[in-house]
Amino acid sequence: MAEGCGLNGLELRSRISRDGVLELSLQAVAVPEPAADEIIVQVEATPVNPSDIGVLLGPAALDAAEFGGTAARPVVRASVPAAALSAIAARLDASLPVGNEGAGTVVRAGADVVGLLGKRVAVFGGAMWAQYRRAKAADCLVLPEGTTPRDGASWYVNPMTALGFVETMRQEGHTALVHTAAASNLGQMLNSICLADGIGLVNIVRSPQQAALLRGQGARHVVDSGAPDFTAALTAALTETGATLGFDAVGGGPLAGQILAAMEAAARQAASGYHHYGSDRHKQVYLYGRLNTGPTIFERAPIGFAWGLGGWLLMPALKKLGAATEARLRGRVTAELKTTFASHYTAEISLAEALRPETMRAYCQRATGEKFLILPQQGVG
Amino acid sequence: MAEGCGLNGLELRSRISRDGVLELSLQAVAVPEPAADEIIVQVEATPVNPSDIGVLLGPAALDAAEFGGTAARPVVRASVPAAALSAIAARLDASLPVGNEGAGTVVRAGADVVGLLGKRVAVFGGAMWAQYRRAKAADCLVLPEGTTPRDGASWYVNPMTALGFVETMRQEGHTALVHTAAASNLGQMLNSICLADGIGLVNIVRSPQQAALLRGQGARHVVDSGAPDFTAALTAALTETGATLGFDAVGGGPLAGQILAAMEAAARQAASGYHHYGSDRHKQVYLYGRLNTGPTIFERAPIGFAWGLGGWLLMPALKKLGAATEARLRGRVTAELKTTFASHYTAEISLAEALRPETMRAYCQRATGEKFLILPQQGVG
Repeated sequence: MAEGCGLNGLELRSRISRDGVLELSLQAVAVPEPAADEIIVQVEATPVNPSDIGVLLGPAALDAAEFGGTAARPVVRASVPAAALSAIAARLDASLPVGNEGAGTVVRAGADVVGLLGKRVAVFGGAMWAQYRRAKAADCLVLPEGTTPRDGASWYVNPMTALGFVETMRQEGHTALVHTAAASNLGQMLNSICLADGIGLVNIVRSPQQAALLRGQGARHVVDSGAPDFTAALTAALTETGATLGFDAVGGGPLAGQILAAMEAAARQAASGYHHYGSDRHKQVYLYGRLNTGPTIFERAPIGFAWGLGGWLLMPALKKLGAATEARLRGRVTAELKTTFASHYTAEISLAEALRPETMRAYCQRATGEKFLILPQQGVG
Repeated sequence: MAEGCGLNGLELRSRISRDGVLELSLQAVAVPEPAADEIIVQVEATPVNPSDIGVLLGPAALDAAEFGGTAARPVVRASVPAAALSAIAARLDASLPVGNEGAGTVVRAGADVVGLLGKRVAVFGGAMWAQYRRAKAADCLVLPEGTTPRDGASWYVNPMTALGFVETMRQEGHTALVHTAAASNLGQMLNSICLADGIGLVNIVRSPQQAALLRGQGARHVVDSGAPDFTAALTAALTETGATLGFDAVGGGPLAGQILAAMEAAARQAASGYHHYGSDRHKQVYLYGRLNTGPTIFERAPIGFAWGLGGWLLMPALKKLGAATEARLRGRVTAELKTTFASHYTAEISLAEALRPETMRAYCQRATGEKFLILPQQGVG
């Protein structure tokens, strides 16, 4: 173990025991001395992303959770179904830190990177729901002058995902995109990028309010999956844009299959003659989220044979795109942090508040438009 | 239109009218004179493949079919649901020939290919459920000495599909295979190829009888999807073979997802540590058939993020593999037509018998192991 650097801080931890009990708590830990190439960041802002909730809860259901402890040191317990334990065998009894990304101020710096002391930086890579985070200096992004930790907290997951969609589109030979849950923070970023870059984007939303929000931001193609003319409107938008690649945050239910079927209908309208096996134009939908955790269901007859469904995950996708592309995308995020990649939060909360029943219910509901920002230095009792 | 060559023959035709009536019948047509590079083949044997049934019936259901006409000139009529017509708009009112492949004797030959007269050849490319078939000589395969039309009738679809699976496996960087409906003619061929080439193959069957059949043919890994230990047996076989690519003839229901989940379970057992998003080993299942025409259903949690599902179709797959590979595969089929690629038929029938109720019900049932061979020169009244 590294020697302590004299600082102590709280970390939010998630632990699932072998007998199937999830426990969430704040742990006071001594912050280690940084190595020569490392820094200690005092975390000032870190968002609650859907991807954090998976690590936080595992397969436990929030409905039956018990909220105990004190206001300053809450403890949440929930039981995990025995059948779900084998899939997470490797995490049982381990105390896992949570939180993919955040930003703050460098309060300790190793010998090789002392110049970073006092700088504001953004960090990605886990364990950010904490007051302090040790990190390799090379993995951090020094925030530009005039950028606050609030501005930089969500610098990685959503911006790099939105840019990753566009780069994947280019890599795989498509020319336009479909996106679901399109009114999300991520969706709004993608819309801005596509408008700026002249890329056709079909935004699928779930309410007229979300449609109005995106149209207000200049979106050209917005279809409401709840509207009675959804299929026809989607097919028309696909015909106009020529989109043959979709990114779906919903995952469960019929939506991904409906997108493939509408892509195929658009392709058949554009083709001449009868092809028993359908269009030979390849249609692809990647499932990158789990807003609907139920099973995915699709019919094959309306989609022909030239189709693919697959998982899409940011880190492997970036790896496939290559280091040079990733560096280019990071540069764009830094330059446009307060414009294209600005995030909007419903509420700011402390680490302790992140474990209160009403807060947890709100962020675990995964409703588009609800987004929380944790300020780990706030309300420490 | 080309001038007639003096021959007349029957062709089985499928027509769906704009008002939604399917009509199957035998049409007497004048055989055209072949062009300089063409031949006329007197078709002596042509199989009923699952892929033919799609063209034959379209979206019509056989249950409500009416069987009329005479014994020598049967006519089958069935109604097509109005909702299904838009997807097949391009074939409405067209009289479509049926039958992907077959073999016979060259009875007319164009000026450039007179040397083929009297030869036995195999043909692929549609319109084979007929007494005569005009074809480009270059598209035909001259059958080796001692090979009958019965031996050569199923020379293309199943053999090239089985070989195509293996080549796709190599092209996409996998090292072993999973196959469903593995006791089919195609499955038996694939098993022979994998045994000969030393490729790990997990055969998924639906009954103990099918398992015994494949084991009798030397299959090393056979799992029965109806057995209570299916998931455990499949995972064990995937661990032993390292198969991360599956070809699924069933299509509907949970099977493809079960295969992906078992591949992921095998990959997680082999990995160390806890990875919230699952294994990063890519797992792929291609759906190439529709034995179950119901919706495809899968759960995402057990399969992680590194997975793909997609359609697989022989002709585009061969195109992707390239002309040199296709030529090599054709050469292997020719050399092993009476061994590896021998087909087994349940019954031999005439063109007229192919439209009888009991025959149609048998081949449309798509039961593994049932396979019909049409002899178009037989029983012509």
